[in-house]
Amino acid sequence: MSLESGAGKPLAKYAAWRRAGDFVFLSGIIPVNPQSATIVRGFQDIPVEARLLLGETGEFSTDAKQGPILAQSWYVLESIRYTIEEAGGQMSDVIKLVQYFRNLDHFPYYSRVRKLFYPGQPPVSTVVQVSEMLPSAEVLIEVEATAWLPQSRLTQ
Amino acid sequence: MSLESGAGKPLAKYAAWRRAGDFVFLSGIIPVNPQSATIVRGFQDIPVEARLLLGETGEFSTDAKQGPILAQSWYVLESIRYTIEEAGGQMSDVIKLVQYFRNLDHFPYYSRVRKLFYPGQPPVSTVVQVSEMLPSAEVLIEVEATAWLPQSRLTQ
Amino acid sequence: MSLESGAGKPLAKYAAWRRAGDFVFLSGIIPVNPQSATIVRGFQDIPVEARLLLGETGEFSTDAKQGPILAQSWYVLESIRYTIEEAGGQMSDVIKLVQYFRNLDHFPYYSRVRKLFYPGQPPVSTVVQVSEMLPSAEVLIEVEATAWLPQSRLTQ
Amino acid sequence: MSLESGAGKPLAKYAAWRRAGDFVFLSGIIPVNPQSATIVRGFQDIPVEARLLLGETGEFSTDAKQGPILAQSWYVLESIRYTIEEAGGQMSDVIKLVQYFRNLDHFPYYSRVRKLFYPGQPPVSTVVQVSEMLPSAEVLIEVEATAWLPQSRLTQ
Amino acid sequence: MSLESGAGKPLAKYAAWRRAGDFVFLSGIIPVNPQSATIVRGFQDIPVEARLLLGETGEFSTDAKQGPILAQSWYVLESIRYTIEEAGGQMSDVIKLVQYFRNLDHFPYYSRVRKLFYPGQPPVSTVVQVSEMLPSAEVLIEVEATAWLPQSRLTQ
Amino acid sequence: MSLESGAGKPLAKYAAWRRAGDFVFLSGIIPVNPQSATIVRGFQDIPVEARLLLGETGEFSTDAKQGPILAQSWYVLESIRYTIEEAGGQMSDVIKLVQYFRNLDHFPYYSRVRKLFYPGQPPVSTVVQVSEMLPSAEVLIEVEATAWLPQSRLTQ
Repeated sequence: MSLESGAGKPLAKYAAWRRAGDFVFLSGIIPVNPQSATIVRGFQDIPVEARLLLGETGEFSTDAKQGPILAQSWYVLESIRYTIEEAGGQMSDVIKLVQYFRNLDHFPYYSRVRKLFYPGQPPVSTVVQVSEMLPSAEVLIEVEATAWLPQSRLTQ
Repeated sequence: MSLESGAGKPLAKYAAWRRAGDFVFLSGIIPVNPQSATIVRGFQDIPVEARLLLGETGEFSTDAKQGPILAQSWYVLESIRYTIEEAGGQMSDVIKLVQYFRNLDHFPYYSRVRKLFYPGQPPVSTVVQVSEMLPSAEVLIEVEATAWLPQSRLTQ
Repeated sequence: MSLESGAGKPLAKYAAWRRAGDFVFLSGIIPVNPQSATIVRGFQDIPVEARLLLGETGEFSTDAKQGPILAQSWYVLESIRYTIEEAGGQMSDVIKLVQYFRNLDHFPYYSRVRKLFYPGQPPVSTVVQVSEMLPSAEVLIEVEATAWLPQSRLTQ
Repeated sequence: MSLESGAGKPLAKYAAWRRAGDFVFLSGIIPVNPQSATIVRGFQDIPVEARLLLGETGEFSTDAKQGPILAQSWYVLESIRYTIEEAGGQMSDVIKLVQYFRNLDHFPYYSRVRKLFYPGQPPVSTVVQVSEMLPSAEVLIEVEATAWLPQSRLTQ
Repeated sequence: MSLESGAGKPLAKYAAWRRAGDFVFLSGIIPVNPQSATIVRGFQDIPVEARLLLGETGEFSTDAKQGPILAQSWYVLESIRYTIEEAGGQMSDVIKLVQYFRNLDHFPYYSRVRKLFYPGQPPVSTVVQVSEMLPSAEVLIEVEATAWLPQSRLTQ
Repeated sequence: MSLESGAGKPLAKYAAWRRAGDFVFLSGIIPVNPQSATIVRGFQDIPVEARLLLGETGEFSTDAKQGPILAQSWYVLESIRYTIEEAGGQMSDVIKLVQYFRNLDHFPYYSRVRKLFYPGQPPVSTVVQVSEMLPSAEVLIEVEATAWLPQSRLTQ
C-alpha cells in the first residue's frame, strides 16, 4: 500500500526530518495532504487498500463516525513510515511517539491502527489531549516521531 | 520507600522504556497502578512513608484538596525512578522531563514533590496544561522522561 | 541585538539546559524576564532593534493586536539563541522545536519571527495548542528546543 | 453465554414485557443489574465469554475507553434476548429497536455489538442522542424493543 | 375526578388518537390545556381533588418545588385516561408508555403519580431525558401511550 | 415529484421497513441521501418542484435560515412516502409519527411541510427535542413512522 505522493512533505518552512548523530527527528505530522493542501476527513480520502485494512463497514452512520479518526490515524502513521524510509530506515526504527489528540475517546481507534504498523516491539509512547492543532479543528491527531537509526545500519 | 509491584509497567501495547544508543526514552507515565488498573486518587492510594514525606495533615479538607495532586505527583515520579532503575540507571540520569497538567494551579504541589526526587542537579523541564489525559479526567498529571545513560556507566 | 541580561535563566529549580552526549536539551522557554519576573506583554517590553525588526507600526490598534505574540515570539527565540550560545553552540545547532500556543491563530506571527532566526535550514517542528502555560494565561507561547552539538564542534 | 440471573427484570413498578395480540412490547432496557442494583461500568461487569466476544484488548487505556459502551451495549442486548426468550420467542422476533445514546460517538461500538445479536435480517432502527437516562449519567445507552410473536409460533 | 373539558384534544393538526386494528395509538401528550392554551404550572392549575390526592402540603417552598412536576404528571396521565375512554377503553388497556422528561430528578414524583393510575398490572415503560418539548421549556414531561383494545372488548 | 433514487434505503445494517402482521414499521428516517452519503443542507439539495412547493423566496438570508429545516422536513417525509409505497401502501396508511428535532423553533416549518403530505386525516404525533442525531449535528430532524396496512388492502 503506497501513500499518495507528497505525504510527509513539510507544509511550511520546517524540515520533515533531521538527522542528528544516530538519531532522526521528525516534525509533528498531521493528516494533511501537502500537495492538495486538504485535510483527510474520512475513508474517502485514503486508498482503497487502507479502507479495507481499517475495517470500513459500508454502513453510512458507522463510517461517518469512526471514519475520520481511523483514516487520520492511518494517514499520519503511513506518513511517518514514508518519512523514515526516505531517511533510510523503517518503521521499527521509530522508537518514540508523542501523540496529541483532540478527543481521547478516539484513542481506541488509533491504538487499533498503530498495532497494524507495529506488529513487533512497540515504541515508547506519550498521549495527551490538546485543544487544537494546525491547520484547523478538523485535525483530530498529530504524532511526533523520533527514530534511532545508526549510520552503520542505513538500509542502502 | 518502595513502589507497589507493577508500577511503571506499560498499560497498553507500548514499551515502558527503550534504549537507543546512550539514551533511554520512557513512555509518558500516568498515576495508574497497572496491576489493579486503578487511578491514584489521593493519599489512601500510596504507601504510608510517602504520605508522611508529602506532608499529609490528617485534616480532612486540606488532605482532600491537596492529596490527589501530591499523591499523583509522587506516584508518577516514583514510577519513573523505578523504571530507570530497571533500565540500569538512577533518578539523576533522567535529564529531561516534559510535564503535562490538567490544571497549572497544581504546579506548586508537584514542584515540591519533584525536589524530593532531585536533591542535586535538576533536569531540564517543560510544563504545559492540556485538556485531558488517559484514561480519564481524574488523571491530573503525566510526565515523560528522557535519560542519558551511557552503556559504559550501567550500574551493574 | 542583545537580550537583557538574565533571559534564559531558569525561573525555578530546573536547569536551563543540560548536555547529554552530543545533544543539548533546553527547558521549555516562556516569555518571562527572570530578573524582573515580568511577562513580556508587547513591544514595550523588548529592545528597540527588535521592535523595528518585527515591524511595529506605531498604529495603536495594530500594535496592540499583534504586539503581544510578536514580542513573545521574539523573546522566546532570542532566549533560545542566548541559551544555546551559552552552551557553546549557535541557533543553527538547534534542530528541533516543540511549540505550544494558547491560540493557533497566532501561528502566522510566530512563523514570521522564526524565519528571522532561521535564514538557512529550518529545524523539525511540532505545533499544538494547549489550554495554558506557566506562570499565567498571559503567556501565549512556550518553546522547547533540542540541539545537536557534538563536543568536537564546540565554538571555543 | 448466559446472563447473570436477574437481568431483564424490571427495576421499578413497570412491566418487563407485555403481550398485546401478536405483539410483545418490552420496556426500555438499561445496563443495570436489577439484583445487585449496579450499573454495568465496563468489561469487569460482564461474563468472560462476552469480554472475549467484544474484543477486550487487555490494554488498560483502550479498555477503559471502549469498555463501558461495549459492555453496556452487550448487556442491554443480552437482556433483550433474555426477555424475549422468557416471553417465548427469540432475538429474531424482535423487529424494531429504538436506541437512545448519551453520546452518538458511541454508535460504531454499539453497531458492532448489535451485529453479533443479528447475524440475519436486522430490525428496523431509530437512533437519537438524549441528555440523560435513568438512573444516572453513567448510563450510556437505553434500548426499547418491540417483537412480533404470533401466538401460533410460540416456541414451546 | 374529571378533567376540565378539552383536555386531550390535539393542539395542532394531528390526531389525539388513531385506531389501527386492535391497537389505539395516542399522540404524545403534554400538560397543556388546549382550550385555554395554557401550560399547567403547578397545583393551582389542576382540580382540588387532584391536589389532595397528590399531597399538596400548603407549605410554600415545598409546593413550589414539587407542585409543577406533580401537577403536570397528573394532568398528562389524566389526559391519557380521558383519551382512551373516549376511544372506548380504560386506563388498564394502555399497555405501553414512553415518557420524556426535561429533568430526570423529577422521575420519583412522576412515578408516585403513575401508581395512582395503575393500581394493578403496570404498562411497559421507557424513560429518557430530552432537552425540550413543545410548546416551551416550561413543559417538564410528555407521555406517549399505546393501548391494546380489541374491537370485541369495546366498552359499549 | 419524485425522490432521487436511493432515498429511503437503510444507511447501516438495519431494515428500512419490516412488516409485522398488519403493521409496517419504518426505521427512523434522517435527511441523508444514502447513495451520495450526503446530508440535505438546504434548498439546493432537493428537486426544483419541491423548492417551489416549500416557498423558496430567492432572498438569500431568508432561504439560508429556513431552507435547511424546510428541505430536511420535505426530504424526510418524502422518504417516508417512498418507503411506504415500496411496502405497498400510501402516505395515509402511516398513522403514527415520532418526530425528533434538534431545535423546536423549527417546528412551525416542519408542521407546514407535514400538512402538504397529509391533506386529510392526520397521524398521531409525538414531538421532542433531542441533543443530536446521526450522522452529525447538521441533521435537524429525524422521523420514525408506523403504518397500518392490512394485507387485504395491499395496493397491488
